Parts: sequence; C-alpha cells; structure tokens
Amino acid sequence: MRLKINKEFPFPVYLQIKNSIKEQILTGILPPGFVLPPERKLADSNGVSRTTVIRAYDELKALGLVESYIGKGTVVTERREPDTSNKQSYVFPLSWYPLFDKKLGYVSDTITDIMNVGHQKDMISFAAGVGDPDLYPIKQLKAIQAERAYNSEALNLCAVEGYYPLRESLSKLMQFRSLSVSPKEVMILSGSMQGIDFTARTFLSPGDAVIVEEPTFLQAIQCFRAAGAKIIGIPLDDEGIRTDVLEAQLSRYKPKFIYTIPTFHNPTGIVMSMKRKMELLHLAYKYQVPVLEDDPYGEISFDQQERPPLKALDSYDYVIYLGTFSKVLFSGTRVGWVIGPEPVMKRFALLKQITDLHVNTPGQFMLDRYLREGFYEAHLKNELAVYKKKRDFMAAALRQNHGLIAFNVPDGGYYHWCRIPEQVSQKDLLSLCASKGMLFTPGTVFYPQESDGAHFLRLNYTYESFERITKGVAILIEALEKLNGQKTEDRVHRENRPIV
Amino acid sequence: MRLKINKEFPFPVYLQIKNSIKEQILTGILPPGFVLPPERKLADSNGVSRTTVIRAYDELKALGLVESYIGKGTVVTERREPDTSNKQSYVFPLSWYPLFDKKLGYVSDTITDIMNVGHQKDMISFAAGVGDPDLYPIKQLKAIQAERAYNSEALNLCAVEGYYPLRESLSKLMQFRSLSVSPKEVMILSGSMQGIDFTARTFLSPGDAVIVEEPTFLQAIQCFRAAGAKIIGIPLDDEGIRTDVLEAQLSRYKPKFIYTIPTFHNPTGIVMSMKRKMELLHLAYKYQVPVLEDDPYGEISFDQQERPPLKALDSYDYVIYLGTFSKVLFSGTRVGWVIGPEPVMKRFALLKQITDLHVNTPGQFMLDRYLREGFYEAHLKNELAVYKKKRDFMAAALRQNHGLIAFNVPDGGYYHWCRIPEQVSQKDLLSLCASKGMLFTPGTVFYPQESDGAHFLRLNYTYESFERITKGVAILIEALEKLNGQKTEDRVHRENRPIV
Repeated sequence: MRLKINKEFPFPVYLQIKNSIKEQILTGILPPGFVLPPERKLADSNGVSRTTVIRAYDELKALGLVESYIGKGTVVTERREPDTSNKQSYVFPLSWYPLFDKKLGYVSDTITDIMNVGHQKDMISFAAGVGDPDLYPIKQLKAIQAERAYNSEALNLCAVEGYYPLRESLSKLMQFRSLSVSPKEVMILSGSMQGIDFTARTFLSPGDAVIVEEPTFLQAIQCFRAAGAKIIGIPLDDEGIRTDVLEAQLSRYKPKFIYTIPTFHNPTGIVMSMKRKMELLHLAYKYQVPVLEDDPYGEISFDQQERPPLKALDSYDYVIYLGTFSKVLFSGTRVGWVIGPEPVMKRFALLKQITDLHVNTPGQFMLDRYLREGFYEAHLKNELAVYKKKRDFMAAALRQNHGLIAFNVPDGGYYHWCRIPEQVSQKDLLSLCASKGMLFTPGTVFYPQESDGAHFLRLNYTYESFERITKGVAILIEALEKLNGQKTEDRVHRENRPIV
Repeated sequence: MRLKINKEFPFPVYLQIKNSIKEQILTGILPPGFVLPPERKLADSNGVSRTTVIRAYDELKALGLVESYIGKGTVVTERREPDTSNKQSYVFPLSWYPLFDKKLGYVSDTITDIMNVGHQKDMISFAAGVGDPDLYPIKQLKAIQAERAYNSEALNLCAVEGYYPLRESLSKLMQFRSLSVSPKEVMILSGSMQGIDFTARTFLSPGDAVIVEEPTFLQAIQCFRAAGAKIIGIPLDDEGIRTDVLEAQLSRYKPKFIYTIPTFHNPTGIVMSMKRKMELLHLAYKYQVPVLEDDPYGEISFDQQERPPLKALDSYDYVIYLGTFSKVLFSGTRVGWVIGPEPVMKRFALLKQITDLHVNTPGQFMLDRYLREGFYEAHLKNELAVYKKKRDFMAAALRQNHGLIAFNVPDGGYYHWCRIPEQVSQKDLLSLCASKGMLFTPGTVFYPQESDGAHFLRLNYTYESFERITKGVAILIEALEKLNGQKTEDRVHRENRPIV
C-alpha cells in the first residue's frame, strides 16, 4: 500500500499514515471490506516503527473507518447507512450556488485580485492605498511591546465598543480635527471600512437608495451593492459634490444616507469647499437624511490649511464620522473608529457583538500607547514631508507624458487621478503594464456604472520608493504611447481604406 | 467669557480655547452677532499668551464660525442658510429609529452588558468564555515580537484570505483534528464568530429557516435572528443532537443550513456520539442541507479519547468547519479560521473584502511564529492539566449544594451546565449574585425561546483562580438557598392561609 510519508514534515508520522489511509478510504480507493496490511509489514515497508502504525490504526478505528477482527486483521468498515426506511446509496454533491443569497452575486473580486498580484515582490504597485512601509514606526512599536505594561490584559477580550484607554486617546486626537467628543462617543472598529459595512447593515434593505460621490471608494460601492441598494452617484467638480444635482436626487430617490469623502477625496484628491460643506449639511437637514463622512485622508495634508470635517460643522448630529489609522500609520492592524449619534452607536455595538465581538486587543493596546507617548504627531510630521516629496516626484515623472496623461496635483491624500486618451483601452493598458511589472487601479472600479471610469486611472504615490516610482511611471508612459500609437495607426489604416 | 482650559491636558491650549468657543457657538450660548473679547483681554483673563488666542480665533475663522471686522473685532457669524428658494430656519432633529433596518431590533445586548460588568476587577466572573490569563504565553509572544523577523511586513496589509504562512501552519495543525487540508483551503477570519456571521450573510434571507441545537451558542442565535431567519431548535440528549427530531424538522422547514457544536458543546459540554455524527451527515446528504460545524472546544479535552470533527467524516464536502485560537490560547487577537467547500470560500472572500478586508496582520504573524516554534502543543498540554483541575475543583464546590444544583461533569470544554430549582427565579438569582460580587451566564440566552432556559445556568471554570472559584460558588449556593427558602416559605405562608 502506498502512503504519503515525509519525515521532514513537522507533524508526527503516525498522523501522516492515518490521514493518508483515511483519504484513500473516503475517496473510495480502499473499498469497504479491504484488508489493510498487517502492522509489522506496513511498518517495515515504510521504514517506521510498529508502534507508529499501531497508533495510526487505532485512530482510524476511533474514526469508525476501520475495524479489527481476530484472525482477519484490520478491515475497512462498510459504509453506515442512515437509520431511515428510505435508504439511498448515492449522495448528490451539494449545489451551493442556488442556496446563496442573490445580492452578493454582484460583488466583483477586482480588489482581491489586485491585492494578490500586488504581493508579488517584484511588481511595482501604484494600486493599493497603503503608506510607505519604510516609515512604519517598527522600533517604537517593538519598544511598546517589550514594556512591562504589555501584559496578558493586551491578549484578553475587551469591551464591544473598544479598549477604553484608546477611546480616551482618540477623543484627544479628534481635537486636532476640530471635534470635541468624549471617549464614550468614540467606538473602535476593525478599520473604518467596518463602519461603512455597519452603516449599510443598519440602514439598507434591498431596493433602498443610497447616495455616493461619483467616483468614490470602491469598497463602499461593493458594500452597498451587496446590501441590494440602488446606488445614486452625484458628480464632483473642483469644489466637491455638486449640491445642485444632489438636491434634485434627494427629492427624487429619498435615499437612506449620503456617503461622502469630503477631504482629499478618494480617488480624485478633491477637497470639498466650505460653501459646499454648508450646503450639503443644510440639504441633509432639509431632507432629513443622515450623512456618512469617511475621513481616512484628512490628516495627510501638505499645506497648513485647516479643513474641518463635516462632523465639526454639524450642529444637529446628522453626521456619522469614520476615522482610521490605516493611512497615517499602517493598514495591517485594522483599527478604525466611528463617532456618531447615540442611537447609531448603540446599533453598531449590537452589530459588533454579533459579527466579531471587538477589535483585536493587542492592536488597540499598542496604538493607545503610541498615542500617549506623543509619537503620533512627530511621525505624521516626518511622514508628510516624505509623501509631499513623493507626490511631487511622481507628478514630475508624469509630466513627461507627451500629452497622454492629464491630472491635477492634489493638496493632500495618497493619489494622482489621471485621465488617459479615449482611444486607449484601460484593460489593454492594465495587461500591458502588469506584463512589464507595474500595477495601477483602473478608474472603472470607482464608478457605480463602471464604464464611466473607462478613461481614468488612480496612481498611489506613497507606497513605492522614488526609484520605483520613476520606473513605474516610465512603464506607464511607454505602454500608453504604444497603445495610443497602435490605435492611431489602426485609425489611419481604416481611414486610408476605400469605403466599400 | 468662560473657557474650559486645563493646562495639564496633553493637547495644546489654543485647541482647547477654539473647541470651547466652538461648542458655545454651536449650542447657541454665543448667538450670531456676539462680539468675542479682544485677543489680549482673553489672553490675560485666562493666563495664556496672545499668540495662543490669535491662533484659536484664526481657526474659528477657518471654520466659518466667526468673522473679523476692523474696528468691531471678532464676531460670531450669522447662520448661513442653504442656497435654496425654500428657506427654512428650523432644523428638525433626525428620527433615527424609523430609518433603521427592522431585523436588528431583535438583538438583545445581554452580552455587552455582561462583558462590561465582567470587566470590573473585583467581580468574580463565571460568565465569559475565556481562558485563564495567567496561562497566556506572554513571554514567548514578547520574544516573537522582539525578533528581527517581526518587521514592517507584520504591520502591512495582507491577502483577503489571510497571511499565507499562518494558513500553512493551520493546515498542519488541522492534521491533529484528523483533517487533511491544503493551506489554500484554510481562510483566516476575525474569530470563528465571523464565520457564523458570514454563513448567515451567504445563505440567509429574511424568513429562511436555520437549524440549531437547543440550547446553543448565544451569538449564533443573535446573528441568525439579525438576519431575519426562523430559528428551529433541535433538542439534545447525552449523545448530542436528536437526529430523529432533526429529520422531521428538515423535511418540514427546508432550512438553509444546520449549525452544530458537536464536540464539548456550548453550553452543555455534550459530545456528539459517532453514531449520531454519521446520522447527522447522512441526513444532511439526504436533504441536501449544508452543515456549519463550530469547533472552538475540540482540543480542550481532558481524556485521551479522539473525537473527530464532522468535517473529518464528511466525504461529500457538505460541512463548513470553524476553528479558533480563542479557547486554547486567548480571545483578544480575534483570530479564527474556516475550512469549507470552494464556492463557500470564494463567497467568504468577497464578504471579507467588503467588511474588514483582512484579519489584523500582527496577530496572524505572531500566531504563525508561535505555531512554527512548536510552542502550541506544549502550551495546550500544560493548560489542559490546569483546566482539568479547575473543572474538578469547581465540581467539588458545586456538590456542596444541598440538592439545589444538578449538573454532569463534562469531559472537556469550558463549562459546567447547571440546573436550578424551578421555583427560583433566574433573574433574582443573577441580581443577588451580582450584588454579592459574582456573575454567571443565565441559561435563557442560549435558547431561541428564552424561557426554555429559565432553570439553567452556565458556569465557566477556566477563567477564575481556585480561590475565587471557591468564593464564587459559595456566593451562588448561598443565594440559591436564600431564594429557594423564601419561595418555600412563601408557599408555606400561602398554604397556611385560609382559602377565600
């Protein structure tokens, strides 16, 4: 009998023997009634001890897969039939898809794909929204983890609403975003994305309308789509959301809430003007619609200008505010927070209780200590200097584009949002760039109607090194030139042909 | 003008001034047209520098809350009206509850309450399902975190399905639970609870039926209820789920899936017999119903007996298996995993992508290294010796109950499941015990129909010290005696009264 045994493996040989035989029984290679080799024989032929084989056989017996008979040896058990009169020997494979809830079918896996490709070390990635890993304050964090105070409490359960000391620290941090809130008004979430999901789960039933900016954060689109909602996109101009269009749609669709990224909008980098902010709030008040404000980039600001979040201007508690550590510090700990009206916070606590109980305690503990030590502000200052340089560096590289790329330089955030010639297919561009070792995020994923983003791309400038930014942009421009040239040639060819 | 300034606070005074004035403006204490004190005057009266006040006033201007006029000073801005013809001066407070999705209304916050009370240091808690913090391997984990290999990678994004090395380590660990799976078949989740939530989100639409054991894990009940499902409870006996009742309900309700905890069931500690396991699987095959197997306690086994999970016996891939580190190691990192059929795993990856992207990377990194170093097995062995002692210790204390508590000693898991006299109100008992400094979990929360659990309680024996177990059980028995005696007296009084 052939067995898959590898003595280099870090788990015991008896388990390998047992699982190998088990597999052969379950897949039918060893049929019921089959007599297994005597223990000594199997041991010798595989170069293992008899005790090892005995242990494997014993566990197979415990699983009910084999039985021992004196004189006959160890025999594969006959399949047990259920205790029902209606016996049935053939088991149908389960058809899973018809059992699934229909709504989720619409979610695409572009992000999963991009994240997986982005993890190939040699691939230059302008695709993900992550910071520069060289700036991660790994030394300070290791020092925190080595402290005596980092004890078993950091590994234990914490309250559903979050680790209280971190909620305190965040209430202090929020002062810098013009928000005065008590620690009890801050709830910790598994990334600010969980706040989007919780808002969808709190407000949306299938068929409900929700308003987003167009373009917008793609996970928000996916999340609202998975909730079965009708997604109404409102166009942006250089002052942010077009409030004139918004009012028309508010009265038409009666949406459950408005999702907005007012400061250094993703993917466009646009900042909503103060006038628009006031108009947006007044429309929310007038039409009695809550506002979900997503603010991951508010602190990534390259000038000294203050840009208060909507929540700071909202005197009537219509705004649910989402913050995160993912852009200023790092994304891996998945720690974000929400500040919102009491009834919403209560609902979120119930959702947290039934989904994942609380945010990982070690991450909360570490981030709280980091804030208390005053490391955060120093880190931010240093980081902003680097990201500003990278923004300018990528912008300078992009300007060598021979008229193929149009973009505005943003005052903050993570991205250059670029327009490409209409005749270049985004899909072809993505394939060509990927084959040369560079990845970007196609504009289509940021639009409720994907085709609306066909002539845009989002380039992240924070993650890669200066050297790789140069290389990556060169790949992009070369690819654009090639595809644009082909198209021009195609057209020239077509135009030169006699019209039949 | 009165300002809330505290120079001991770790954030700048100018921010305190700004936010204090902002609050007074937004709450109407300072009306539109109100003239703020001249900068120097405010500085002097509050003992701060003039620059500080200037900075605060500047930021209030940026917020649009005040305006400066030469000769007049700094004045609170008139409220801006929206740019619409239909002017409206009064803003209605938003009525949140009518906007909420109705299903969630049924979720109770018992657990949030118990978790919050359980965090009071002096409270003896038999309520939570957590391990002994004194056993947490904090030293080994600190050593791992201090390693050179613990670098910025541990803080970065990881794949939606989880950190690949951990998936490898788990595929090896699963060999010990008789499961042969490749790393790609293991997906990391934010606790195994997230697997329950994802299964609910994948399969359940409002009105769908789902089968659970009765009693069962309370978060599962809450999660299915929040999905709007009809929850069908199947009774247990000492061999586990009653398959005769199950078959009747399967044909009647056509449920979307069966949720079961076959090994050291929560809260009862019952182990499903091999015969029942085979019957359950054959019923699943016959009625084409998936099985969600929750296995948090499988490794907390006090004898040497092997108890294979359903997943190991399932030759036709009907079982979705959930594992977790929460019971063997600690709950705070919120790391669990799922092993299931490919279509289900794909669906879960999409859900992960729209809810919280991935499990926190530092936790995954740490646990992977912990497994690779071989620490896990040694820890488990040591822990089982302690928990077995604690189980017996609490059992011995409970036996001093003068006929007021009935219970079976489980072969594994975390809990004693106890029956109390029918005449004792569980609510009164909980209040009385809490007032004396002891907390347990009332049986009601484990039943779809809460009243079915009115005469049961769940006592965790792993968390508290031996000394506190003694104290806590004494409080329980004393409270039971008191309440039981009162009831008996009441009855005697009533019986002695003349019948009117």
